[in-house]
Amino acid sequence: MIRTGIGTDVHRFAPGVPMWLAGLHFPDEQAGLAGHSDGDVVCHAICDALLAAARLGDMGSNYGTSEPEWAGAPGLVFLRETRRRVEAAGWQIVNVSVQLIGNRPRMAARRAEAEDLLTATLGADTSLSATTTDGLGFTGRGEGLAAIATALVQRT
Amino acid sequence: MIRTGIGTDVHRFAPGVPMWLAGLHFPDEQAGLAGHSDGDVVCHAICDALLAAARLGDMGSNYGTSEPEWAGAPGLVFLRETRRRVEAAGWQIVNVSVQLIGNRPRMAARRAEAEDLLTATLGADTSLSATTTDGLGFTGRGEGLAAIATALVQRT
Amino acid sequence: MIRTGIGTDVHRFAPGVPMWLAGLHFPDEQAGLAGHSDGDVVCHAICDALLAAARLGDMGSNYGTSEPEWAGAPGLVFLRETRRRVEAAGWQIVNVSVQLIGNRPRMAARRAEAEDLLTATLGADTSLSATTTDGLGFTGRGEGLAAIATALVQRT
Repeated sequence: MIRTGIGTDVHRFAPGVPMWLAGLHFPDEQAGLAGHSDGDVVCHAICDALLAAARLGDMGSNYGTSEPEWAGAPGLVFLRETRRRVEAAGWQIVNVSVQLIGNRPRMAARRAEAEDLLTATLGADTSLSATTTDGLGFTGRGEGLAAIATALVQRT
Repeated sequence: MIRTGIGTDVHRFAPGVPMWLAGLHFPDEQAGLAGHSDGDVVCHAICDALLAAARLGDMGSNYGTSEPEWAGAPGLVFLRETRRRVEAAGWQIVNVSVQLIGNRPRMAARRAEAEDLLTATLGADTSLSATTTDGLGFTGRGEGLAAIATALVQRT
Repeated sequence: MIRTGIGTDVHRFAPGVPMWLAGLHFPDEQAGLAGHSDGDVVCHAICDALLAAARLGDMGSNYGTSEPEWAGAPGLVFLRETRRRVEAAGWQIVNVSVQLIGNRPRMAARRAEAEDLLTATLGADTSLSATTTDGLGFTGRGEGLAAIATALVQRT
């Protein structure tokens, strides 16, 4: 018994805010991502893909903005809790693929580090790719970042 | 033998038109979705993902705008017929994951209802999530709605 | 052992450039796609999905713009080399699903041809669908084309 799930996320750039992405801090960035949490679109897209695969709702229904415990929470906290909920429901994560879409930060130099961190956090192979949109759309104009993820889970 | 498929759909808001989404009517909405059919992006994205997984073409090649029988057809009609065509080609739907992207309607209060309806219609686990784009892009500006779906099918 | 991968790509239209898409030439188009390569978003999205499924990085890390051998390379060259790298890493492609998003060229008349070419190149079932965005966003305004792909691979 295997299941697929998909998830996307978008956050706008917020000047003066630290940039956290894929669970990593990017200290050289002048802008971070706005959000109720730290705006880590990579982690959030993965959470939505995993919750969907296990049919457990989505980020909004699991980590409501009315619950103060999630305010400002780092992306990795959501990943860990999502893994716990998915496994508690009787599913094992098979693998995750996530793509970051946008101009900055450049992920290439830290992709291996990010993949290892995500893989360890989820206990399953996780690949992270990055692409740009050739100057088109809100990501191309540098207004924000998007991420898209797909996941496989199987019955334990 | 298992196969994956992906599909997306976009429709613009049309004032004064009933809003149908994921097979449900949202009577409180002031605008619906424009389209040759009822503009139900959730159902259409699922159809494209299923047709792609079974390599049966896409919405355009299966339900052409020149065929009057599909004019104004509800999203569930396309889902039912797509399931029939996928199964007739020797495939069984394993599961479907679909995400609605946009500002309104709020799906949270009706997500369980929508998931049950989609799951019964397709005869396979279907999860529905929803997200916004933080005010960015055409969905963030409230110009329309997008949906993205992935599906698994297996040989019967 | 099965793995999923996802990839997207975007390129802007470039007047006077030949249009290559899904490995096919569209001689009637007045504009092609800009890019370090031939801008074939369909082939590039597939490559990213396959590389991600096998956890082999992405287009940027595999085919860097600093490597002259990839400058101007056709989409099919990337597909062939990506298949080679995926198989060399011990994976077999199960199937691929890719969707073209944009106004032109019309893919319907050549979809079967494109699917056969992609399937033969990858040695695995590949389905190609096409959709528009109802006039919304950069694809709706005719500024460029996007593609989104998902892939399954399994251990050989």
